[in-house]
Amino acid sequence: MEKMLREAQISITESIAEIDGTASFEEDAWLRPDGGGGRSRVLTNGSVWEKAGVNLSIVYGGMAPQALEAATERSDGGRPTPGPDGKVPFFAASLSCVMHPRNPFCPTMHFNYRYFETDGGIWWFGGGQDITPCYINDDDMKHFHGSLKKVCDKHDPEYYPKFKAWADRYFKIQHRGETRGLGGIFFDDQDSKDPNEIFEFVKDLSNNVVDAYGPIIEKHRDDPFTEKEKEWQLMRRGRYVEFNLVYDRGTIFGLKTGGRIESILMSLPETARWEYDHQPAEGSPEADFIDATKNPREWV
Amino acid sequence: MEKMLREAQISITESIAEIDGTASFEEDAWLRPDGGGGRSRVLTNGSVWEKAGVNLSIVYGGMAPQALEAATERSDGGRPTPGPDGKVPFFAASLSCVMHPRNPFCPTMHFNYRYFETDGGIWWFGGGQDITPCYINDDDMKHFHGSLKKVCDKHDPEYYPKFKAWADRYFKIQHRGETRGLGGIFFDDQDSKDPNEIFEFVKDLSNNVVDAYGPIIEKHRDDPFTEKEKEWQLMRRGRYVEFNLVYDRGTIFGLKTGGRIESILMSLPETARWEYDHQPAEGSPEADFIDATKNPREWV
Repeated sequence: MEKMLREAQISITESIAEIDGTASFEEDAWLRPDGGGGRSRVLTNGSVWEKAGVNLSIVYGGMAPQALEAATERSDGGRPTPGPDGKVPFFAASLSCVMHPRNPFCPTMHFNYRYFETDGGIWWFGGGQDITPCYINDDDMKHFHGSLKKVCDKHDPEYYPKFKAWADRYFKIQHRGETRGLGGIFFDDQDSKDPNEIFEFVKDLSNNVVDAYGPIIEKHRDDPFTEKEKEWQLMRRGRYVEFNLVYDRGTIFGLKTGGRIESILMSLPETARWEYDHQPAEGSPEADFIDATKNPREWV
Repeated sequence: MEKMLREAQISITESIAEIDGTASFEEDAWLRPDGGGGRSRVLTNGSVWEKAGVNLSIVYGGMAPQALEAATERSDGGRPTPGPDGKVPFFAASLSCVMHPRNPFCPTMHFNYRYFETDGGIWWFGGGQDITPCYINDDDMKHFHGSLKKVCDKHDPEYYPKFKAWADRYFKIQHRGETRGLGGIFFDDQDSKDPNEIFEFVKDLSNNVVDAYGPIIEKHRDDPFTEKEKEWQLMRRGRYVEFNLVYDRGTIFGLKTGGRIESILMSLPETARWEYDHQPAEGSPEADFIDATKNPREWV
Protein backbone atom coordinates (compact mmCIF):
# COMPACT_ATOMS: atom_id res chain seq x y z
CA MET A 1 0.00 0.00 0.00
CA GLU A 2 2.78 2.43 0.93
CA LYS A 3 4.62 1.70 -2.33
CA MET A 4 1.45 2.06 -4.40
CA LEU A 5 0.55 5.38 -2.76
CA ARG A 6 4.12 6.70 -3.20
CA GLU A 7 3.94 5.95 -6.92
CA ALA A 8 0.42 7.34 -7.24
CA GLN A 9 1.51 10.62 -5.63
CA ILE A 10 4.23 11.07 -8.25
CA SER A 11 2.16 10.07 -11.28
CA ILE A 12 -0.91 12.11 -10.27
CA THR A 13 1.09 15.26 -9.58
CA GLU A 14 2.99 14.86 -12.86
CA SER A 15 -0.26 14.57 -14.84
CA ILE A 16 -1.81 17.54 -13.05
CA ALA A 17 1.29 19.73 -13.57
CA GLU A 18 1.13 18.84 -17.27
CA ILE A 19 -2.51 19.97 -17.46
CA ASP A 20 -1.70 23.16 -15.55
CA GLY A 21 1.14 23.94 -17.96
CA THR A 22 2.67 26.74 -15.84
CA ALA A 23 3.32 25.76 -12.25
CA SER A 24 4.98 22.70 -10.84
CA PHE A 25 4.66 20.85 -7.55
CA GLU A 26 7.09 21.72 -4.78
CA GLU A 27 7.99 18.99 -2.40
CA ASP A 28 8.34 19.06 1.39
CA ALA A 29 9.27 16.01 3.39
CA TRP A 30 8.31 16.04 7.06
CA LEU A 31 8.79 13.80 10.07
CA ARG A 32 6.15 13.17 12.71
CA PRO A 33 7.76 13.47 16.17
CA ASP A 34 5.90 10.38 17.44
CA GLY A 35 6.68 8.12 14.48
CA GLY A 36 6.66 8.18 10.71
CA GLY A 37 6.33 11.14 8.42
CA GLY A 38 5.32 12.11 4.96
CA ARG A 39 5.82 14.03 1.78
CA SER A 40 3.69 16.95 0.66
CA ARG A 41 3.64 18.03 -2.97
CA VAL A 42 2.01 21.42 -3.41
CA LEU A 43 1.35 23.52 -6.51
CA THR A 44 0.53 27.20 -6.01
CA ASN A 45 -0.10 30.01 -8.44
CA GLY A 46 -0.79 27.78 -11.42
CA SER A 47 -2.60 28.92 -14.54
CA VAL A 48 -5.41 26.42 -13.87
CA TRP A 49 -5.11 25.76 -10.13
CA GLU A 50 -4.64 28.40 -7.49
CA LYS A 51 -3.72 25.66 -5.02
CA ALA A 52 -3.33 21.91 -5.43
CA GLY A 53 -1.81 19.63 -2.86
CA VAL A 54 -1.21 15.91 -2.64
CA ASN A 55 -0.03 14.65 0.71
CA LEU A 56 1.49 11.26 1.42
CA SER A 57 1.46 10.31 5.05
CA ILE A 58 2.96 7.16 6.54
CA VAL A 59 2.52 7.41 10.28
CA TYR A 60 2.71 4.95 13.17
CA GLY A 61 3.20 4.77 16.91
CA GLY A 62 0.65 5.17 19.69
CA MET A 63 -2.69 6.83 19.04
CA ALA A 64 -4.94 8.40 21.68
CA PRO A 65 -8.37 6.66 21.76
CA GLN A 66 -10.23 9.88 20.79
CA ALA A 67 -8.02 10.19 17.70
CA LEU A 68 -8.87 6.61 16.77
CA GLU A 69 -12.55 7.49 17.00
CA ALA A 70 -11.96 10.13 14.32
CA ALA A 71 -10.20 7.58 12.12
CA THR A 72 -13.09 5.17 11.73
CA GLU A 73 -16.86 5.24 11.55
CA ARG A 74 -17.21 2.28 13.91
CA SER A 75 -18.13 3.64 17.30
CA ASP A 76 -16.01 0.98 19.01
CA GLY A 77 -12.95 1.98 16.93
CA GLY A 78 -12.71 -1.64 15.77
CA ARG A 79 -12.01 -2.79 19.37
CA PRO A 80 -8.23 -2.40 19.34
CA THR A 81 -6.17 -3.06 22.47
CA PRO A 82 -4.57 0.04 24.01
CA GLY A 83 -0.93 -0.38 25.11
CA PRO A 84 0.26 0.13 28.71
CA ASP A 85 0.43 3.92 28.04
CA GLY A 86 -3.32 3.96 27.24
CA LYS A 87 -2.55 4.49 23.54
CA VAL A 88 -3.37 2.19 20.66
CA PRO A 89 -0.41 1.05 18.55
CA PHE A 90 -1.22 1.84 14.92
CA PHE A 91 0.09 2.15 11.39
CA ALA A 92 -1.59 4.34 8.75
CA ALA A 93 -0.68 4.91 5.10
CA SER A 94 -2.67 7.60 3.37
CA LEU A 95 -2.62 9.68 0.21
CA SER A 96 -4.91 12.68 0.23
CA CYS A 97 -5.43 15.50 -2.16
CA VAL A 98 -7.41 18.67 -2.72
CA MET A 99 -7.18 20.77 -5.87
CA HIS A 100 -8.79 24.22 -6.11
CA PRO A 101 -8.88 25.70 -9.64
CA ARG A 102 -9.28 29.43 -10.36
CA ASN A 103 -12.07 29.27 -12.93
CA PRO A 104 -15.52 28.97 -11.28
CA PHE A 105 -16.51 26.47 -13.98
CA CYS A 106 -13.63 24.16 -13.04
CA PRO A 107 -14.59 22.03 -10.02
CA THR A 108 -12.50 21.45 -6.93
CA MET A 109 -11.56 17.78 -6.52
CA HIS A 110 -10.62 15.76 -3.48
CA PHE A 111 -9.52 12.19 -3.02
CA ASN A 112 -8.09 10.16 -0.20
CA TYR A 113 -7.04 6.52 -0.08
CA ARG A 114 -5.84 5.01 3.16
CA TYR A 115 -4.97 1.84 5.00
CA PHE A 116 -5.03 1.45 8.78
CA GLU A 117 -3.70 -1.22 11.06
CA THR A 118 -3.95 -1.40 14.84
CA ASP A 119 -2.64 -4.03 17.23
CA GLY A 120 -4.38 -7.37 17.40
CA GLY A 121 -4.65 -7.99 13.68
CA ILE A 122 -7.21 -5.23 13.04
CA TRP A 123 -6.94 -3.57 9.64
CA TRP A 124 -9.14 -1.66 7.22
CA PHE A 125 -9.12 0.35 4.01
CA GLY A 126 -10.91 3.63 3.44
CA GLY A 127 -11.07 6.28 0.80
CA GLY A 128 -12.98 7.94 -1.98
CA GLN A 129 -12.94 10.69 -4.56
CA ASP A 130 -15.45 13.52 -4.78
CA ILE A 131 -16.06 16.66 -6.76
CA THR A 132 -17.10 20.17 -5.76
CA PRO A 133 -18.22 22.37 -8.62
CA CYS A 134 -20.02 25.70 -8.04
CA TYR A 135 -22.35 25.18 -11.01
CA ILE A 136 -24.05 22.07 -12.30
CA ASN A 137 -22.97 20.63 -15.60
CA ASP A 138 -24.76 17.34 -16.22
CA ASP A 139 -22.23 16.05 -18.74
CA ASP A 140 -19.36 16.67 -16.35
CA MET A 141 -21.17 14.88 -13.56
CA LYS A 142 -21.99 11.95 -15.85
CA HIS A 143 -18.31 11.72 -16.76
CA PHE A 144 -17.03 11.96 -13.17
CA HIS A 145 -19.52 9.65 -11.53
CA GLY A 146 -19.48 7.32 -14.57
CA SER A 147 -15.72 6.99 -14.32
CA LEU A 148 -15.94 6.05 -10.63
CA LYS A 149 -18.80 3.65 -11.29
CA LYS A 150 -16.81 1.85 -13.96
CA VAL A 151 -13.95 1.11 -11.57
CA CYS A 152 -16.36 0.14 -8.80
CA ASP A 153 -18.37 -2.18 -11.06
CA LYS A 154 -15.21 -4.03 -12.07
CA HIS A 155 -14.75 -5.08 -8.44
CA ASP A 156 -18.26 -5.34 -7.03
CA PRO A 157 -21.59 -4.20 -8.55
CA GLU A 158 -22.74 -3.17 -5.06
CA TYR A 159 -19.83 -0.76 -4.56
CA TYR A 160 -20.94 2.28 -6.58
CA PRO A 161 -24.50 2.68 -5.27
CA LYS A 162 -23.34 1.97 -1.72
CA PHE A 163 -20.30 4.24 -1.78
CA LYS A 164 -22.08 7.02 -3.72
CA ALA A 165 -24.76 7.14 -1.02
CA TRP A 166 -22.04 7.04 1.65
CA ALA A 167 -20.37 10.11 0.08
CA ASP A 168 -23.70 11.97 0.09
CA ARG A 169 -24.00 11.21 3.81
CA TYR A 170 -20.38 11.85 4.70
CA PHE A 171 -19.85 15.13 2.86
CA LYS A 172 -22.84 16.78 4.47
CA ILE A 173 -22.41 20.15 6.18
CA GLN A 174 -24.86 19.21 8.90
CA HIS A 175 -25.56 22.72 10.21
CA ARG A 176 -26.47 23.83 6.65
CA GLY A 177 -28.30 20.72 5.52
CA GLU A 178 -26.18 20.93 2.35
CA THR A 179 -23.54 18.61 0.92
CA ARG A 180 -20.14 20.18 0.30
CA GLY A 181 -20.28 19.46 -3.43
CA LEU A 182 -21.81 16.98 -5.83
CA GLY A 183 -20.37 13.86 -4.29
CA GLY A 184 -18.55 10.88 -5.71
CA ILE A 185 -17.71 7.84 -3.64
CA PHE A 186 -16.67 7.43 -0.01
CA PHE A 187 -16.02 4.31 2.04
CA ASP A 188 -14.43 3.43 5.36
CA ASP A 189 -13.77 0.38 7.53
CA GLN A 190 -13.48 -2.02 4.57
CA ASP A 191 -12.25 -5.30 6.03
CA SER A 192 -14.71 -7.99 5.01
CA LYS A 193 -12.97 -9.26 1.86
CA ASP A 194 -9.47 -10.59 1.28
CA PRO A 195 -7.11 -7.62 1.87
CA ASN A 196 -5.45 -8.16 -1.53
CA GLU A 197 -8.82 -7.84 -3.24
CA ILE A 198 -9.59 -4.56 -1.48
CA PHE A 199 -6.06 -3.37 -2.21
CA GLU A 200 -6.58 -3.99 -5.96
CA PHE A 201 -9.81 -1.98 -5.82
CA VAL A 202 -8.09 0.94 -4.07
CA LYS A 203 -5.18 0.73 -6.50
CA ASP A 204 -7.49 0.88 -9.51
CA LEU A 205 -9.25 3.91 -8.00
CA SER A 206 -5.92 5.63 -7.35
CA ASN A 207 -4.89 5.05 -10.95
CA ASN A 208 -8.21 6.45 -12.16
CA VAL A 209 -8.04 9.77 -10.26
CA VAL A 210 -6.85 11.91 -13.18
CA ASP A 211 -9.06 10.17 -15.76
CA ALA A 212 -12.11 11.01 -13.68
CA TYR A 213 -11.17 14.65 -13.15
CA GLY A 214 -8.72 15.86 -15.82
CA PRO A 215 -11.09 15.97 -18.84
CA ILE A 216 -13.50 18.25 -16.93
CA ILE A 217 -10.69 20.71 -16.30
CA GLU A 218 -9.43 20.59 -19.90
CA LYS A 219 -12.97 21.36 -21.05
CA HIS A 220 -13.58 24.38 -18.81
CA ARG A 221 -10.16 25.86 -18.11
CA ASP A 222 -10.74 28.79 -20.44
CA ASP A 223 -14.49 29.32 -19.89
CA PRO A 224 -15.28 33.05 -19.55
CA PHE A 225 -16.79 34.10 -16.22
CA THR A 226 -18.14 37.20 -14.49
CA GLU A 227 -17.17 38.77 -11.20
CA LYS A 228 -20.49 37.57 -9.72
CA GLU A 229 -19.68 33.99 -10.71
CA LYS A 230 -16.24 34.31 -9.09
CA GLU A 231 -17.85 35.62 -5.88
CA TRP A 232 -20.22 32.66 -5.87
CA GLN A 233 -17.23 30.34 -6.18
CA LEU A 234 -15.60 32.00 -3.17
CA MET A 235 -18.79 31.59 -1.14
CA ARG A 236 -18.88 27.88 -1.99
CA ARG A 237 -15.22 27.77 -0.87
CA GLY A 238 -16.45 29.16 2.44
CA ARG A 239 -18.69 26.10 2.67
CA TYR A 240 -15.68 23.93 1.85
CA VAL A 241 -13.83 25.46 4.81
CA GLU A 242 -16.85 24.91 7.07
CA PHE A 243 -17.00 21.22 6.14
CA ASN A 244 -13.29 20.60 6.50
CA LEU A 245 -12.83 22.35 9.84
CA VAL A 246 -16.04 21.15 11.48
CA TYR A 247 -16.72 17.66 10.07
CA ASP A 248 -13.90 16.17 8.01
CA ARG A 249 -12.58 12.98 9.62
CA GLY A 250 -9.12 13.30 8.02
CA THR A 251 -8.66 16.87 9.25
CA ILE A 252 -9.83 16.08 12.77
CA PHE A 253 -7.67 12.92 12.87
CA GLY A 254 -4.66 14.94 11.69
CA LEU A 255 -5.14 17.75 14.21
CA LYS A 256 -5.62 15.22 17.04
CA THR A 257 -2.62 13.03 16.22
CA GLY A 258 -0.25 16.00 16.01
CA GLY A 259 0.10 15.76 12.26
CA ARG A 260 1.86 18.47 10.26
CA ILE A 261 -0.55 21.43 10.30
CA GLU A 262 0.41 22.86 6.89
CA SER A 263 -0.11 19.45 5.27
CA ILE A 264 -3.45 18.92 6.96
CA LEU A 265 -4.77 22.39 6.18
CA MET A 266 -3.42 22.28 2.62
CA SER A 267 -7.00 21.28 1.81
CA LEU A 268 -8.27 24.80 2.53
CA PRO A 269 -8.76 27.05 -0.48
CA GLU A 270 -6.50 30.04 -1.10
CA THR A 271 -9.48 32.36 -0.63
CA ALA A 272 -12.95 31.94 0.81
CA ARG A 273 -15.86 34.27 1.35
CA TRP A 274 -18.79 34.58 3.76
CA GLU A 275 -21.62 36.98 2.96
CA TYR A 276 -24.29 37.42 5.59
CA ASP A 277 -27.44 35.47 4.71
CA HIS A 278 -26.71 35.22 0.99
CA GLN A 279 -29.69 33.77 -0.91
CA PRO A 280 -29.40 32.99 -4.63
CA ALA A 281 -32.24 34.31 -6.82
CA GLU A 282 -35.05 31.84 -7.45
CA GLY A 283 -34.56 29.91 -10.67
CA SER A 284 -30.87 30.89 -10.96
CA PRO A 285 -28.07 28.37 -11.63
CA GLU A 286 -26.83 29.10 -8.10
CA ALA A 287 -30.23 28.14 -6.64
CA ASP A 288 -30.21 24.96 -8.72
CA PHE A 289 -26.81 24.12 -7.29
CA ILE A 290 -28.01 24.64 -3.70
CA ASP A 291 -30.98 22.39 -4.47
CA ALA A 292 -28.62 19.61 -5.60
CA THR A 293 -26.67 19.94 -2.32
CA LYS A 294 -29.87 19.67 -0.29
CA ASN A 295 -31.33 16.83 -2.36
CA PRO A 296 -28.46 14.71 -3.72
CA ARG A 297 -29.10 13.57 -7.31
CA GLU A 298 -28.20 10.46 -9.26
CA TRP A 299 -25.83 11.31 -12.10
CA VAL A 300 -25.40 7.92 -13.77
CA MET B 1 -30.01 40.97 31.75
CA GLU B 2 -32.22 40.61 28.68
CA LYS B 3 -33.29 44.28 28.91
CA MET B 4 -29.70 45.46 29.39
CA LEU B 5 -28.43 43.42 26.41
CA ARG B 6 -31.30 44.64 24.21
CA GLU B 7 -30.39 48.25 24.98
CA ALA B 8 -26.65 47.60 24.57
CA GLN B 9 -27.27 46.08 21.11
CA ILE B 10 -29.00 49.28 19.97
CA SER B 11 -26.55 51.75 21.49
CA ILE B 12 -23.43 49.87 20.32
CA THR B 13 -24.67 49.48 16.74
CA GLU B 14 -25.71 53.17 16.64
CA SER B 15 -22.24 54.28 17.76
CA ILE B 16 -20.50 51.96 15.31
CA ALA B 17 -22.70 53.08 12.39
CA GLU B 18 -21.82 56.68 13.28
CA ILE B 19 -18.10 55.89 13.14
CA ASP B 20 -18.54 54.05 9.86
CA GLY B 21 -20.37 57.01 8.37
CA THR B 22 -21.64 55.16 5.27
CA ALA B 23 -23.43 51.93 6.04
CA SER B 24 -26.11 51.18 8.57
CA PHE B 25 -27.12 48.03 10.42
CA GLU B 26 -29.87 45.92 8.95
CA GLU B 27 -32.02 44.02 11.35
CA ASP B 28 -33.31 40.46 11.20
CA ALA B 29 -35.45 38.95 13.90
CA TRP B 30 -35.52 35.17 14.10
CA LEU B 31 -37.29 32.52 16.11
CA ARG B 32 -35.67 29.36 17.42
CA PRO B 33 -37.99 26.41 16.72
CA ASP B 34 -37.35 24.91 20.17
CA GLY B 35 -37.90 28.12 22.16
CA GLY B 36 -36.89 31.75 22.10
CA GLY B 37 -35.24 33.67 19.34
CA GLY B 38 -33.17 36.71 18.67
CA ARG B 39 -32.35 39.77 16.69
CA SER B 40 -29.32 40.13 14.44
CA ARG B 41 -28.06 43.55 13.41
CA VAL B 42 -25.58 43.35 10.57
CA LEU B 43 -23.64 46.04 8.71
CA THR B 44 -22.07 45.12 5.40
CA ASN B 45 -20.14 47.12 2.85
CA GLY B 46 -19.29 49.96 5.18
CA SER B 47 -16.51 52.44 4.54
CA VAL B 48 -14.70 51.26 7.69
CA TRP B 49 -16.12 47.77 8.23
CA GLU B 50 -16.57 45.14 5.56
CA LYS B 51 -18.75 43.18 7.97
CA ALA B 52 -19.95 43.93 11.49
CA GLY B 53 -22.61 41.96 13.29
CA VAL B 54 -24.17 42.17 16.72
CA ASN B 55 -26.44 39.31 17.63
CA LEU B 56 -28.90 39.23 20.50
CA SER B 57 -30.04 35.77 21.43
CA ILE B 58 -32.64 34.92 24.06
CA VAL B 59 -33.13 31.17 23.93
CA TYR B 60 -34.65 28.58 26.24
CA GLY B 61 -36.13 25.11 26.29
CA GLY B 62 -34.37 21.76 26.58
CA MET B 63 -30.68 21.44 25.83
CA ALA B 64 -28.84 18.24 24.89
CA PRO B 65 -26.10 17.43 27.46
CA GLN B 66 -23.31 17.71 24.83
CA ALA B 67 -24.51 21.23 23.98
CA LEU B 68 -24.39 22.14 27.65
CA GLU B 69 -20.79 20.95 27.77
CA ALA B 70 -20.00 23.51 25.08
CA ALA B 71 -21.73 26.24 27.08
CA THR B 72 -19.52 26.05 30.16
CA GLU B 73 -15.93 25.26 31.07
CA ARG B 74 -16.96 23.08 34.01
CA SER B 75 -16.62 19.48 32.90
CA ASP B 76 -19.72 18.53 34.91
CA GLY B 77 -21.77 21.24 33.17
CA GLY B 78 -22.63 22.65 36.61
CA ARG B 79 -24.50 19.44 37.53
CA PRO B 80 -27.91 20.38 36.17
CA THR B 81 -30.79 17.92 36.22
CA PRO B 82 -31.90 16.60 32.83
CA GLY B 83 -35.66 16.48 32.31
CA PRO B 84 -37.59 13.27 31.49
CA ASP B 85 -36.59 13.72 27.78
CA GLY B 86 -32.88 13.57 28.72
CA LYS B 87 -32.54 17.28 28.05
CA VAL B 88 -31.60 20.02 30.49
CA PRO B 89 -34.13 22.85 30.83
CA PHE B 90 -32.23 26.12 30.29
CA PHE B 91 -32.47 29.84 29.63
CA ALA B 92 -29.68 31.84 27.98
CA ALA B 93 -29.44 35.53 27.19
CA SER B 94 -26.46 36.55 25.11
CA LEU B 95 -25.18 39.48 23.11
CA SER B 96 -22.28 38.69 20.81
CA CYS B 97 -20.46 40.68 18.22
CA VAL B 98 -17.67 40.51 15.69
CA MET B 99 -16.56 43.47 13.58
CA HIS B 100 -14.12 43.07 10.68
CA PRO B 101 -12.74 46.36 9.28
CA ARG B 102 -11.23 46.67 5.79
CA ASN B 103 -8.01 48.48 6.65
CA PRO B 104 -5.30 46.04 7.84
CA PHE B 105 -4.30 48.56 10.52
CA CYS B 106 -7.81 48.55 12.00
CA PRO B 107 -8.24 45.54 14.30
CA THR B 108 -11.13 43.10 14.33
CA MET B 109 -13.05 43.20 17.61
CA HIS B 110 -15.22 40.63 19.33
CA PHE B 111 -17.26 40.72 22.48
CA ASN B 112 -19.84 38.47 24.06
CA TYR B 113 -21.77 38.88 27.29
CA ARG B 114 -24.11 36.15 28.45
CA TYR B 115 -26.19 34.79 31.29
CA PHE B 116 -27.21 31.15 31.66
CA GLU B 117 -29.71 29.43 33.88
CA THR B 118 -30.47 25.73 34.13
CA ASP B 119 -32.96 23.92 36.32
CA GLY B 120 -32.24 23.54 40.00
CA GLY B 121 -31.21 27.14 40.68
CA ILE B 122 -27.98 26.92 38.69
CA TRP B 123 -26.92 30.18 36.99
CA TRP B 124 -23.76 31.83 35.75
CA PHE B 125 -22.45 34.80 33.80
CA GLY B 126 -19.80 34.70 31.10
CA GLY B 127 -18.30 37.02 28.58
CA GLY B 128 -15.39 39.13 27.49
CA GLN B 129 -14.07 41.44 24.82
CA ASP B 130 -10.94 40.83 22.75
CA ILE B 131 -9.07 42.38 19.87
CA THR B 132 -7.48 40.91 16.77
CA PRO B 133 -5.13 43.24 14.92
CA CYS B 134 -2.76 42.01 12.20
CA TYR B 135 0.04 44.32 13.29
CA ILE B 136 1.18 45.35 16.74
CA ASN B 137 0.66 48.93 17.86
CA ASP B 138 1.66 49.28 21.50
CA ASP B 139 -0.36 52.45 22.08
CA ASP B 140 -3.52 50.81 20.73
CA MET B 141 -3.01 47.77 22.94
CA LYS B 142 -2.39 49.99 25.98
CA HIS B 143 -5.64 51.80 25.25
CA PHE B 144 -7.70 48.65 24.68
CA HIS B 145 -6.38 46.58 27.57
CA GLY B 146 -6.21 49.69 29.79
CA SER B 147 -9.86 50.41 29.12
CA LEU B 148 -10.86 46.86 30.10
CA LYS B 149 -8.61 46.94 33.17
CA LYS B 150 -10.24 50.16 34.37
CA VAL B 151 -13.72 48.60 34.32
CA CYS B 152 -12.44 45.39 35.90
CA ASP B 153 -10.57 47.22 38.67
CA LYS B 154 -13.71 49.12 39.62
CA HIS B 155 -15.34 45.81 40.51
CA ASP B 156 -12.51 43.60 41.69
CA PRO B 157 -8.72 44.13 41.48
CA GLU B 158 -8.29 40.41 40.77
CA TYR B 159 -10.52 40.49 37.68
CA TYR B 160 -8.21 41.95 35.03
CA PRO B 161 -5.11 39.76 35.59
CA LYS B 162 -7.30 36.68 35.96
CA PHE B 163 -9.54 37.35 32.97
CA LYS B 164 -6.68 38.59 30.75
CA ALA B 165 -4.84 35.29 31.34
CA TRP B 166 -8.12 33.40 30.72
CA ALA B 167 -8.49 35.12 27.33
CA ASP B 168 -4.91 34.17 26.39
CA ARG B 169 -5.77 30.53 27.20
CA TYR B 170 -9.23 30.54 25.64
CA PHE B 171 -8.43 32.25 22.32
CA LYS B 172 -5.64 29.82 21.52
CA ILE B 173 -5.63 28.05 18.18
CA GLN B 174 -4.29 24.88 19.72
CA HIS B 175 -3.10 23.21 16.53
CA ARG B 176 -1.05 26.33 15.67
CA GLY B 177 0.17 27.18 19.15
CA GLU B 178 -0.94 30.77 18.38
CA THR B 179 -3.59 32.96 19.97
CA ARG B 180 -6.22 34.30 17.56
CA GLY B 181 -5.29 37.90 18.28
CA LEU B 182 -3.87 40.02 21.07
CA GLY B 183 -6.40 39.11 23.71
CA GLY B 184 -8.49 41.12 26.09
CA ILE B 185 -10.58 39.56 28.83
CA PHE B 186 -12.58 36.33 28.96
CA PHE B 187 -14.51 34.73 31.79
CA ASP B 188 -17.06 31.97 32.21
CA ASP B 189 -19.00 30.24 34.99
CA GLN B 190 -19.13 33.33 37.23
CA ASP B 191 -21.47 32.47 40.08
CA SER B 192 -19.59 33.01 43.32
CA LYS B 193 -20.74 36.58 44.08
CA ASP B 194 -24.18 38.08 44.44
CA PRO B 195 -25.79 37.89 40.96
CA ASN B 196 -26.59 41.63 41.05
CA GLU B 197 -22.94 42.46 41.64
CA ILE B 198 -21.84 40.33 38.67
CA PHE B 199 -24.63 41.83 36.60
CA GLU B 200 -23.35 45.36 37.33
CA PHE B 201 -19.86 44.29 36.23
CA VAL B 202 -21.17 42.82 32.97
CA LYS B 203 -23.32 45.92 32.41
CA ASP B 204 -20.33 48.25 32.86
CA LEU B 205 -18.31 46.14 30.41
CA SER B 206 -21.15 46.23 27.86
CA ASN B 207 -21.33 50.01 28.16
CA ASN B 208 -17.57 50.26 27.68
CA VAL B 209 -17.38 48.24 24.43
CA VAL B 210 -17.20 51.21 22.06
CA ASP B 211 -14.91 53.27 24.32
CA ALA B 212 -12.38 50.44 24.31
CA TYR B 213 -12.49 49.93 20.53
CA GLY B 214 -13.76 53.03 18.74
CA PRO B 215 -10.76 55.35 19.25
CA ILE B 216 -8.41 52.74 17.68
CA ILE B 217 -10.58 52.67 14.57
CA GLU B 218 -10.86 56.47 14.35
CA LYS B 219 -7.07 56.64 14.54
CA HIS B 220 -6.32 54.12 11.78
CA ARG B 221 -9.32 54.20 9.46
CA ASP B 222 -7.42 56.11 6.77
CA ASP B 223 -3.95 54.59 7.23
CA PRO B 224 -2.36 53.81 3.85
CA PHE B 225 -1.55 50.13 3.24
CA THR B 226 0.06 47.91 0.60
CA GLU B 227 -1.31 44.86 -1.17
CA LYS B 228 1.09 42.68 0.85
CA GLU B 229 -0.31 44.10 4.09
CA LYS B 230 -3.84 43.38 2.88
CA GLU B 231 -2.85 39.78 2.05
CA TRP B 232 -1.38 39.37 5.51
CA GLN B 233 -4.67 40.59 6.97
CA LEU B 234 -6.55 37.97 4.95
CA MET B 235 -4.21 35.23 6.18
CA ARG B 236 -4.85 36.31 9.78
CA ARG B 237 -8.57 36.14 8.93
CA GLY B 238 -7.94 32.53 7.92
CA ARG B 239 -6.68 31.95 11.46
CA TYR B 240 -9.84 33.65 12.76
CA VAL B 241 -11.94 31.15 10.80
CA GLU B 242 -9.85 28.25 12.12
CA PHE B 243 -10.40 29.35 15.73
CA ASN B 244 -14.10 30.00 15.35
CA LEU B 245 -14.97 26.77 13.54
CA VAL B 246 -12.70 24.45 15.54
CA TYR B 247 -12.58 25.87 19.09
CA ASP B 248 -15.04 28.69 19.77
CA ARG B 249 -17.49 27.69 22.51
CA GLY B 250 -20.21 30.06 21.30
CA THR B 251 -20.06 28.76 17.74
CA ILE B 252 -20.10 25.11 18.80
CA PHE B 253 -22.92 25.77 21.28
CA GLY B 254 -24.91 27.53 18.56
CA LEU B 255 -24.42 24.79 15.96
CA LYS B 256 -25.34 22.10 18.52
CA THR B 257 -28.46 23.81 19.86
CA GLY B 258 -29.87 24.39 16.39
CA GLY B 259 -29.28 28.12 16.52
CA ARG B 260 -29.72 30.31 13.47
CA ILE B 261 -26.75 29.48 11.24
CA GLU B 262 -26.40 32.90 9.61
CA SER B 263 -26.36 34.58 13.03
CA ILE B 264 -23.80 32.14 14.42
CA LEU B 265 -21.49 32.34 11.40
CA MET B 266 -21.87 36.12 11.16
CA SER B 267 -18.57 36.07 13.07
CA LEU B 268 -16.69 34.81 10.00
CA PRO B 269 -14.88 37.44 7.95
CA GLU B 270 -16.08 38.40 4.47
CA THR B 271 -12.84 37.03 3.00
CA ALA B 272 -10.08 34.80 4.32
CA ARG B 273 -6.92 33.37 2.83
CA TRP B 274 -4.74 30.31 3.29
CA GLU B 275 -1.28 30.19 1.71
CA TYR B 276 0.63 26.96 1.99
CA ASP B 277 3.30 27.14 4.69
CA HIS B 278 3.52 30.95 4.74
CA GLN B 279 6.43 32.13 6.93
CA PRO B 280 6.93 35.87 7.60
CA ALA B 281 10.48 37.18 7.07
CA GLU B 282 12.62 37.25 10.20
CA GLY B 283 12.53 40.61 11.94
CA SER B 284 9.42 41.74 10.02
CA PRO B 285 6.34 43.27 11.72
CA GLU B 286 4.46 40.11 10.68
CA ALA B 287 7.01 37.91 12.49
CA ASP B 288 6.72 40.14 15.58
CA PHE B 289 2.97 39.69 15.48
CA ILE B 290 3.29 35.88 15.31
CA ASP B 291 5.68 36.02 18.25
CA ALA B 292 3.07 37.90 20.31
CA THR B 293 0.49 35.22 19.49
CA LYS B 294 2.86 32.46 20.59
CA ASN B 295 4.05 34.29 23.71
CA PRO B 296 1.20 36.47 25.00
CA ARG B 297 2.45 39.85 26.26
CA GLU B 298 1.33 42.17 29.03
CA TRP B 299 0.06 45.46 27.59
CA VAL B 300 -0.77 47.40 30.75
